[in-house]
Amino acid sequence: MQVDWRDEIAGALDQLREKRPLVHNITNYVVMNSTANALLALGASPVMAHAVEEVEELVALSGALVLNIGTLSGPWIAGMFRAGRRACDLGIPIVLDPVGAGATRLRTDTSRRLLEELHPSVLRGNASEILALGAGEGGARGVDAAHTVDQARQTAIQLARAHGIVVAVTGAEDFLTDGQRTARVANGHALMARVTGTGCAASAITAAFCAVERDPLKAAAAALVVFGLAGEIAASGAPRPGTFGIRLFDALDEVTAEHVHEGARIKVEEAAE
Amino acid sequence: MQVDWRDEIAGALDQLREKRPLVHNITNYVVMNSTANALLALGASPVMAHAVEEVEELVALSGALVLNIGTLSGPWIAGMFRAGRRACDLGIPIVLDPVGAGATRLRTDTSRRLLEELHPSVLRGNASEILALGAGEGGARGVDAAHTVDQARQTAIQLARAHGIVVAVTGAEDFLTDGQRTARVANGHALMARVTGTGCAASAITAAFCAVERDPLKAAAAALVVFGLAGEIAASGAPRPGTFGIRLFDALDEVTAEHVHEGARIKVEEAAE
Amino acid sequence: MQVDWRDEIAGALDQLREKRPLVHNITNYVVMNSTANALLALGASPVMAHAVEEVEELVALSGALVLNIGTLSGPWIAGMFRAGRRACDLGIPIVLDPVGAGATRLRTDTSRRLLEELHPSVLRGNASEILALGAGEGGARGVDAAHTVDQARQTAIQLARAHGIVVAVTGAEDFLTDGQRTARVANGHALMARVTGTGCAASAITAAFCAVERDPLKAAAAALVVFGLAGEIAASGAPRPGTFGIRLFDALDEVTAEHVHEGARIKVEEAAE
Repeated sequence: MQVDWRDEIAGALDQLREKRPLVHNITNYVVMNSTANALLALGASPVMAHAVEEVEELVALSGALVLNIGTLSGPWIAGMFRAGRRACDLGIPIVLDPVGAGATRLRTDTSRRLLEELHPSVLRGNASEILALGAGEGGARGVDAAHTVDQARQTAIQLARAHGIVVAVTGAEDFLTDGQRTARVANGHALMARVTGTGCAASAITAAFCAVERDPLKAAAAALVVFGLAGEIAASGAPRPGTFGIRLFDALDEVTAEHVHEGARIKVEEAAE
Repeated sequence: MQVDWRDEIAGALDQLREKRPLVHNITNYVVMNSTANALLALGASPVMAHAVEEVEELVALSGALVLNIGTLSGPWIAGMFRAGRRACDLGIPIVLDPVGAGATRLRTDTSRRLLEELHPSVLRGNASEILALGAGEGGARGVDAAHTVDQARQTAIQLARAHGIVVAVTGAEDFLTDGQRTARVANGHALMARVTGTGCAASAITAAFCAVERDPLKAAAAALVVFGLAGEIAASGAPRPGTFGIRLFDALDEVTAEHVHEGARIKVEEAAE
Repeated sequence: MQVDWRDEIAGALDQLREKRPLVHNITNYVVMNSTANALLALGASPVMAHAVEEVEELVALSGALVLNIGTLSGPWIAGMFRAGRRACDLGIPIVLDPVGAGATRLRTDTSRRLLEELHPSVLRGNASEILALGAGEGGARGVDAAHTVDQARQTAIQLARAHGIVVAVTGAEDFLTDGQRTARVANGHALMARVTGTGCAASAITAAFCAVERDPLKAAAAALVVFGLAGEIAASGAPRPGTFGIRLFDALDEVTAEHVHEGARIKVEEAAE
């Protein structure tokens, strides 16, 4: 049965702007600045911190936690587990971004351990990353996807069922599932793949929506619709990646419930396929 | 007695452009790039380095040192004390930015230790951070201020007197004091709070002014006037945070002594209140 | 004998866009984001990773490796040697960027060890950095050059011969040599020195060209011509550093073989001087 989530998504966006949730990010060096700016532009409040000495205190103040494994190293893994366990205890939603899973054992193994031990609300990755966490035969090439979203579809459903989580596979058309329901989001623009950190921003924005919308599938769908719409707004008049990347922050500030009602391209199926 | 510092501020800006002071930053991952760009745009020369093996050599080459505790961890604390002690020995001014003090014990305790051991020339923070370093009942919420500048006013004066330093509380209207004299700076723009790292840039710019102006209260006031004016220039024609953040670098390059004379909104009281 | 490399450079640029080489960067915190964006804008695929646990796997997937010593520390040095040795074993070209060599012993010594042990294809630095790696009397002032490119000319030739590498000294006019042949590149714009990380981007772009052009002198020359042309394109209509820095990414996306044929300002001498 196909349903219409535009009202819920528009409502979640309004709530996010009103509540201004604090989002705790343990993320990679490359995107710390752009992720913080994306959250600020959207209307959330970012905090970036990784040290084991302080992450438990910070996550307890936060509405959601992002664990992003780009530029991974030992001390960061320790910080992720420390923060993640505290988030689990407190019922604070976690979004896991397995950047580059499949490209190295460190990334694949760490993502699997985080997945198994913390049961994040949402796992968001590109097709190659999601495939790597499923059957274990990802074959990623660096951190860019070498597979299509459709190729990762069954693995996403399996992972969602096995871990009781939402899996969001992003690409030209995004595929989301909680193991039963599925959603496809067709918003976005090709230039988003030409700017570093847009996938990471999508994960952080998903976390911001998880802080105001209890259904993680709706939260992830809202994030991808809103971020995709921002990409479309930014691309009109900015045909090249530098200016586009900056306009993307402008557009995250500009996008409204009205844009959602008019421009959301989302299909939701309530029964699993 | 109220005095007019516009000539001194305009003069310090001209001196900064002429001397191009090297500013050594031990700062957080989120803002390293934007801080370096802010200093370059203004006309200073940034160096970012944290390793205990090299910070003493670098600070000895520098006109000022910035210690910024965002994304704090053990090795960075060690680097801060190593660099800070050398700066003290050499009489090189230090600016301390206690990012998120009050939000975690690691940040509050480290800020207090840096304050007590290094006696920085200037402590610059938002109201919640300054309150946390005073009576110890900050109650910060992440890294954004949860208090008004006025609420932190008495604590700022107490801290300035206790440590013999200048305290600069930034917000909608900035409050600065060396324990005797006070200054209020009303320059700036609301969009500055929508871009990550503007507070950190204010601290780095304060350090750049400390390298050319021996009176740290004047240096901090000059920094906040000049940075605030740049914010005003940037905001005209850039109503959203992405483009505004980039224009802010343009404006730091553009702002002149003439802008200071025409646009500075600063009130200085020579006697303590 | 003077030769014309415009055809080769234009061809290398077309190849780079077609092959989209993966470039592995072990680089400093300040420029990770801007370096990744420069590579993406140009048409390459960046990966940033430093952990000893994974760098061997990542470099094996890559077309070239960048070792950049800004914000250096122990764990990063370990990662650099681990990745570099694997790159040597696999014949993957290495570009070394000795950021701030001469300013501290850590940087000078580490650069020398990397140079001697890994024999990178290209060493790219400013004049002060190259001088510091030669006679050892650099006298750098922070990370900005305190010497002219001409002052570093003989040292560059000596280093190229001693290590069997290409040395590229960048500045107002770039000087490149493999110890026999020399090239001078006069493309670029003064605003490039007002944005942090443009030197680091030049090194990463050199690595991207090394992945598609086997002659490292031609690869480095192509990188500096193409990046210089991008700087010229970006500067037209963007007279200040903030907007210029963003347009520089636009221009890396925009620059074509035709720009190379029309605008390259390069002189190559086949016999050593």
